[in-house]
Amino acid sequence: MIQKLIEKIKKTNAPIVVGLDPMMKYIPEHIKQAAYQEQGETLEGAAEAVWQYNKAIIDATYDLIPAVKPQIAMYEQFGIPGLTAFKKTVDYCKEKDLVVIGDVKRGDIGSTSEAYAVGHIGKVQAGSRFYRGFDEDFITVNPYLGSDGVKPFIAVGKEEKKGIFVLVKTSNPSSGEFQDRLVEGRPLYEIVGEQVAAWGEEHMGEEYSYVGAVVGATYPEQGKILRKLMPKTYILVPGYGAQGGKGADLVHFFNEDGLGAIVNSSRGIIAAYQQEKYAQFGAKNFADASRQAVVDMIEDISGALASKY
Amino acid sequence: MIQKLIEKIKKTNAPIVVGLDPMMKYIPEHIKQAAYQEQGETLEGAAEAVWQYNKAIIDATYDLIPAVKPQIAMYEQFGIPGLTAFKKTVDYCKEKDLVVIGDVKRGDIGSTSEAYAVGHIGKVQAGSRFYRGFDEDFITVNPYLGSDGVKPFIAVGKEEKKGIFVLVKTSNPSSGEFQDRLVEGRPLYEIVGEQVAAWGEEHMGEEYSYVGAVVGATYPEQGKILRKLMPKTYILVPGYGAQGGKGADLVHFFNEDGLGAIVNSSRGIIAAYQQEKYAQFGAKNFADASRQAVVDMIEDISGALASKY
Repeated sequence: MIQKLIEKIKKTNAPIVVGLDPMMKYIPEHIKQAAYQEQGETLEGAAEAVWQYNKAIIDATYDLIPAVKPQIAMYEQFGIPGLTAFKKTVDYCKEKDLVVIGDVKRGDIGSTSEAYAVGHIGKVQAGSRFYRGFDEDFITVNPYLGSDGVKPFIAVGKEEKKGIFVLVKTSNPSSGEFQDRLVEGRPLYEIVGEQVAAWGEEHMGEEYSYVGAVVGATYPEQGKILRKLMPKTYILVPGYGAQGGKGADLVHFFNEDGLGAIVNSSRGIIAAYQQEKYAQFGAKNFADASRQAVVDMIEDISGALASKY
Repeated sequence: MIQKLIEKIKKTNAPIVVGLDPMMKYIPEHIKQAAYQEQGETLEGAAEAVWQYNKAIIDATYDLIPAVKPQIAMYEQFGIPGLTAFKKTVDYCKEKDLVVIGDVKRGDIGSTSEAYAVGHIGKVQAGSRFYRGFDEDFITVNPYLGSDGVKPFIAVGKEEKKGIFVLVKTSNPSSGEFQDRLVEGRPLYEIVGEQVAAWGEEHMGEEYSYVGAVVGATYPEQGKILRKLMPKTYILVPGYGAQGGKGADLVHFFNEDGLGAIVNSSRGIIAAYQQEKYAQFGAKNFADASRQAVVDMIEDISGALASKY
């Protein structure tokens, strides 16, 4: 799957991922009204609005992009109907041949991590049969519990040729509170990054590992250091656009082969129609605004990469 | 809800929580066969087996215990049908007036943590109406992202009089890999523990905070230190029994009021019938074995506490 991700990045010339984080305030009124009319003002109605919104954005962008990253929390908040919309979204993206990175940030003790791994990137047994619960291609993983909390994801990933992205240095303002603490003179995120590189050796693709890392666009200096510490690690970079990261900040997340990083934008793409820059599309044509925002994001990042290499 | 938890602990004289982590290998054959016969060897069939197993254990133990802790991963592995069984379990435990601690270990950037908080301990809006997605009383939270990843859980908890338990020092063998790293001469878990105590000041019950901590029974020395660092923090203690912790190891997790800690056992209770000690019950009477294991666990812990105070 890391090979498929790399091939698709090369083919689209777009090292980007669209974050499908459908907050209700992003969804145009006409979509919400239609869904509530059909299903009532219920969890099912909200989930239907989420799904229709996602579908329109996927239809308008899938040919330009290699991957999507649905954030499960935005679905989980609507309980079972929300998670059903998550699964529908994952399945639909896979039909469109997109690589799906489930942003689930799971992580627990060994036997529990194994259950999460099985549910999201593996198969679970029911009697003599096997089923896939959610079936993403990659998921994000929290490293706080250490190796025995992470390795079950790698083990299941090896069986399935699927992978993970481990949180190293997150994009949020308070990420430094624990992640930047100095351990023998070095910030904790470097220690975690080295460990991610070591875990990565256990599950390699051709040039890159199936074990990736999450490093926020909002911390370009740290990204530069982590890039060198984890040369074979694909870096998933959130925080572009709405969270403040810019194309020029991102070049150091890439290797000299122009690969090694994939930049996520969520709100900047899916709620583009709410920005002044794309206001001329109007709420009815929100998906066209998203497509234009994808085109612009690719240009911003490709331009920055071209001027570096 | 922290007051309800404390009242129920005093009333039952049982500072324990039963971990509802229904791994398939724990579920007796007759339960699985009946479920698969009814629903087929499907995710629905597996989820039905999980639910029937849980229900029997809850029915056999609820009058002896203050709280349960369903581990969501064990349900999530079965996809949507599994999560439906999770919700059914939460609802049923609440009908039985048990305090429900959802072991979900969520945690993300601010807006995403808010969605998780809303889905698990709050209310979500659909049009003009509000709904509860999963509706636990407490959930566990991962602190790796720092304050802005944790505070949305506290904010929603304040509105709802619900709470959280933040991972500080986990019970698993490799928990020290990052958690024990020395930061200015002190292990990271102490830094996290101090922060948990500070967060706790923002959402206090009477003597104890709604912001608790998770500290593994397998690390009694660390528990002793953390107990002193976080005097008003309730400590959720996993790792008793199957993971190796014993009653005598646990006394230092408690304050001198005999409160301040609640000890979880999962496999040791729910799969008691598989132990030699309870083999005489037989698989058919697995729930009676669980009840006896609860009685024995209460005696072990109360005995250890009595000999300390």
